[in-house]
Amino acid sequence: MYRMIAEMMRKVREVMMLLLYLLLAMFSRGLATHSKRTSSGESPVDTAGYCLSWRMAVESNNMMGWRTIPTQCLRHVEAYMMGGQYSRDINLIIDQIYTYLDTIPPIGDLDSGDGLDAWILDVDDTCLSNLYYYQAKRFGCDPYDPMEFRTWALRGECSAIPAVLRLFNRLLGAGFKVILLSGRDEEALGQATVDNLVDQGFVGFHRLIMRSPENRGQGAITFKSQIRKELMDQGYRIWGNVGDQWSDLQGDCTGNRTFKIPNPMYFVP
Amino acid sequence: MYRMIAEMMRKVREVMMLLLYLLLAMFSRGLATHSKRTSSGESPVDTAGYCLSWRMAVESNNMMGWRTIPTQCLRHVEAYMMGGQYSRDINLIIDQIYTYLDTIPPIGDLDSGDGLDAWILDVDDTCLSNLYYYQAKRFGCDPYDPMEFRTWALRGECSAIPAVLRLFNRLLGAGFKVILLSGRDEEALGQATVDNLVDQGFVGFHRLIMRSPENRGQGAITFKSQIRKELMDQGYRIWGNVGDQWSDLQGDCTGNRTFKIPNPMYFVP
Repeated sequence: MYRMIAEMMRKVREVMMLLLYLLLAMFSRGLATHSKRTSSGESPVDTAGYCLSWRMAVESNNMMGWRTIPTQCLRHVEAYMMGGQYSRDINLIIDQIYTYLDTIPPIGDLDSGDGLDAWILDVDDTCLSNLYYYQAKRFGCDPYDPMEFRTWALRGECSAIPAVLRLFNRLLGAGFKVILLSGRDEEALGQATVDNLVDQGFVGFHRLIMRSPENRGQGAITFKSQIRKELMDQGYRIWGNVGDQWSDLQGDCTGNRTFKIPNPMYFVP
Repeated sequence: MYRMIAEMMRKVREVMMLLLYLLLAMFSRGLATHSKRTSSGESPVDTAGYCLSWRMAVESNNMMGWRTIPTQCLRHVEAYMMGGQYSRDINLIIDQIYTYLDTIPPIGDLDSGDGLDAWILDVDDTCLSNLYYYQAKRFGCDPYDPMEFRTWALRGECSAIPAVLRLFNRLLGAGFKVILLSGRDEEALGQATVDNLVDQGFVGFHRLIMRSPENRGQGAITFKSQIRKELMDQGYRIWGNVGDQWSDLQGDCTGNRTFKIPNPMYFVP
């Protein structure tokens, strides 16, 4: 009888430990993917809801001119960038681009061989990832530091965003001219950028257009609109335009379709 | 001794029931806010991630021409619309509009009294909510049915979206002309729409412009661009443009700033 009770107790303890473990696992996962209780006493659920709204507002171009991410969203943005959802979002967007590509007749049927069917891709956090750099910048809680970013970019150690590299190669394979358009300063970062791109597999782009001395100080919309207009004046047909900033996709001559790659870490005006 | 053990067992049972309840509550909440395991064997976490990516792609204008929401996202969209996050998203966007409004000098200083400082607001799912109707349409899993929607709209029972009604009144208070621009058919739904708007507190709008017979069959971008162009030709300055569809916010004369209200239930081309 006593042994039976002892055995029962052991089983009960085991089941309890398992339940407790599951409970803790779920709870800590909730905390990790959401956020810590803030000093204002906001609950983790409220913070998670706020940060999701904030990120949605950024991606849908409702929020402009922000300099840093809200401090209470540090863990949310970290979990988003590192936990798989960022990659999942990008993959779905690239799938959408492939769906669109399937609606475009083959280049051979289109251009009478003039070689002017183009796609425009942004560089930073479109082709090349600065995630490693922004990890040290608390995923955008720290304000942008142009000198530090330049030092980072000069190292040429950005890694390719895999889904965008696949898109790049598919565009080349389909016969499009891929034009990379970057707000980076050409004089300072031209060689490092080319090296970094090629090193990461972006081989065969038609042109890499960066900010020349006369474009310094221009906003991204002004600079990129001007370049796209020049390209269209040269006869290029811009079939698609891909960037992580709304300033890549707005203004003039934005292209037949634009695609916004997510970026909750910084805003480029 | 035996009583002590019995007492202990009772306590253990109580604690276990509590743990089990918490676990089930969290698990069912996970199911409700995420999704059911699909027939393809996708896990709830995968489905939640996919549906979040899908919704993000819709809101950032990366996904065009979709007719129904993905079936596996029914529970996700339901939880989003009904569980508070949809309202939270709208509130944050309206906050952004208020921030923007604070940057505009008072109308009295602007217009030399010409009364042409305007905001454009869409009607369906911007001012007035069709959520009740879409609940019966499985939150957009069922395809759009123009006749059924017309019957619904004729009843004039859409409720105001509270945050947008507050914005509406604030815009009036600031001296702006609020112009409501709707793709609804004027002949069929004009009176019902006016009645519904006024009934819900949208009192004092400058104009309600709807689709006239000559606009029938036009896409929303074409129709709304044409109207906005006419307004600008009449001298109106469009300070802001608010809609739940990207087709409200694209094309010509889109306004100084555009704001996208979320809508994961349907797509208007």
